[in-house]
Amino acid sequence: MTSQPRIAVIGAGAWGIALACTLSRIAHVTLWTRTPVPDGTRTMPHLPQVTLPDGITVTSTLPSEADIVLLVVPTQGLRDTSLALQQRLKPDVPVVTCCKGMEQGTFMLPLEIIAQTMPGRPAAVLSGPNFAIEVAQGMPAAATLAAADLPFVTELTRRLTTPTLRLYASTDPLGVQLAGAAKNVIAIGAGISVGAKMGENARAAIITRALAETARLVNAMGGEGRTMYGLAGMGDLILTATGAGSRNYSLGVALGRGENVEDILAKRDTVAEGVLTAPTLKKLGQRFDIETPIINVITRLISGELTPHQARDELLDRPPCFE
Amino acid sequence: MTSQPRIAVIGAGAWGIALACTLSRIAHVTLWTRTPVPDGTRTMPHLPQVTLPDGITVTSTLPSEADIVLLVVPTQGLRDTSLALQQRLKPDVPVVTCCKGMEQGTFMLPLEIIAQTMPGRPAAVLSGPNFAIEVAQGMPAAATLAAADLPFVTELTRRLTTPTLRLYASTDPLGVQLAGAAKNVIAIGAGISVGAKMGENARAAIITRALAETARLVNAMGGEGRTMYGLAGMGDLILTATGAGSRNYSLGVALGRGENVEDILAKRDTVAEGVLTAPTLKKLGQRFDIETPIINVITRLISGELTPHQARDELLDRPPCFE
Repeated sequence: MTSQPRIAVIGAGAWGIALACTLSRIAHVTLWTRTPVPDGTRTMPHLPQVTLPDGITVTSTLPSEADIVLLVVPTQGLRDTSLALQQRLKPDVPVVTCCKGMEQGTFMLPLEIIAQTMPGRPAAVLSGPNFAIEVAQGMPAAATLAAADLPFVTELTRRLTTPTLRLYASTDPLGVQLAGAAKNVIAIGAGISVGAKMGENARAAIITRALAETARLVNAMGGEGRTMYGLAGMGDLILTATGAGSRNYSLGVALGRGENVEDILAKRDTVAEGVLTAPTLKKLGQRFDIETPIINVITRLISGELTPHQARDELLDRPPCFE
Repeated sequence: MTSQPRIAVIGAGAWGIALACTLSRIAHVTLWTRTPVPDGTRTMPHLPQVTLPDGITVTSTLPSEADIVLLVVPTQGLRDTSLALQQRLKPDVPVVTCCKGMEQGTFMLPLEIIAQTMPGRPAAVLSGPNFAIEVAQGMPAAATLAAADLPFVTELTRRLTTPTLRLYASTDPLGVQLAGAAKNVIAIGAGISVGAKMGENARAAIITRALAETARLVNAMGGEGRTMYGLAGMGDLILTATGAGSRNYSLGVALGRGENVEDILAKRDTVAEGVLTAPTLKKLGQRFDIETPIINVITRLISGELTPHQARDELLDRPPCFE
């Protein structure tokens, strides 16, 4: 009998539940939920249509014993959770952040937060085009697992790949994290083109050119531009920028129709992360001297500086340039 | 008064009509149609909802006088048309092929056919995510114009960019043409994942990974891999691989449901170009020693060598690898 690793999944949102389900096929899984549940609970509020496999233990006590820990909390809660875990885990237990986006206020990426709160601990980031429900139900999917250390990420990829969730190793954690943040902004851009009735051609062109400009930015920041075209960037965008199910995309549609961002957000109880990320990307473009014309137009439309009509003119009126 | 260029658009299919309409804003346009139309005709059969602007002259006599000639005929008719034109045009008049795919039997790309039939003539290729009706109606769009000669393509890009069709110059004509061919195969793959009910995650992963493997192939063949992620590759794929309007995508859906390719094609009067291109790409992968696992699975499913269920297993069962 081969001994299975003990994997702790921290966070019982839809994505945490899904990861616990697929990992339970290859590991002993502990699923940590902030809100205690009765003993024997086999369905969780955030993915109620799924019955947890027997291999999963649900707990609301943070684990101290685990071979690998997956952090599947919202990015805004990552700092507190990782500080609490750092007290309990042995220093060599690797953590994998499964968060996307940046911390509000600090604009730090998940692995930057981990480096502050869990100094010296081996860490990786997991990101890809993954609807939670499909992964929980055992439908096939793929994602990127990234860390700078090649032997570490190779071994971790081998240990976390399940029969239905295929992982690809990457040594570009910066690119993977920026891709996860930028794709929200590009999804807003895709929505704007639809809301402003610019047509399907314009939507395809905006997605393509916005990916190209963020790839240049990733390169300038020391990552690999081509990561933007991988599972965490383009792959995730294909999943989210073409369907009204995405918060960022639907916010873009409303912006494109001429609504202003405060009115749109006032009607919602969720945040569209791209609203916060867009101005950060625009500033990064300026700092690293990379032209980001589409990101800039999206940012200025969000801030009310442009109308949808002006945004359209700005996108078309630039001189011809190279692909 | 600035003198406008004289542009001849050869072919009055939907895309030829659309290009004639947008170019008529910056040029004197002659639209050549094989089937003669009555004098004064302002609507054409292949895009009946559009009224031709006054600046367009319709003719069924191949032009001898033009500053630029656009070849907008089906790839399978390109050889005959360009041979006939070669007799009439001055040797320095540039031609732009607007065809996608490969010639049946020879598997030649459009610019290879032009090099044979119009030796020594300056030539470029135009390709991008462009639904004809939107371009004809003046909605914004973008496309790539590629030729190996940098000053030539830069000048041609400037001369052919219209107020609503924004062109990006590229010096990778091989990559642009391969992208236009490969995207049909990838669209079949996307359709297969949907027909086989593999889910949205699998579709996004297949598109992403298939683009990555064709980008490696383009690199190995002497083009630039990143062209696959530009307007002619990924951009066009975003437009066509997510909607049932695409012949290749809908063929993939039927294949994924378990129908065989002969039965699917017997019900149609149109060809899905990807069916012909897939085995060619598979062979190119072998010749250039590039792994193309997704292209191979698509090819073997088309040929009946795999069932959809086996195809799914083959895609998932490979060992973990690098993105």
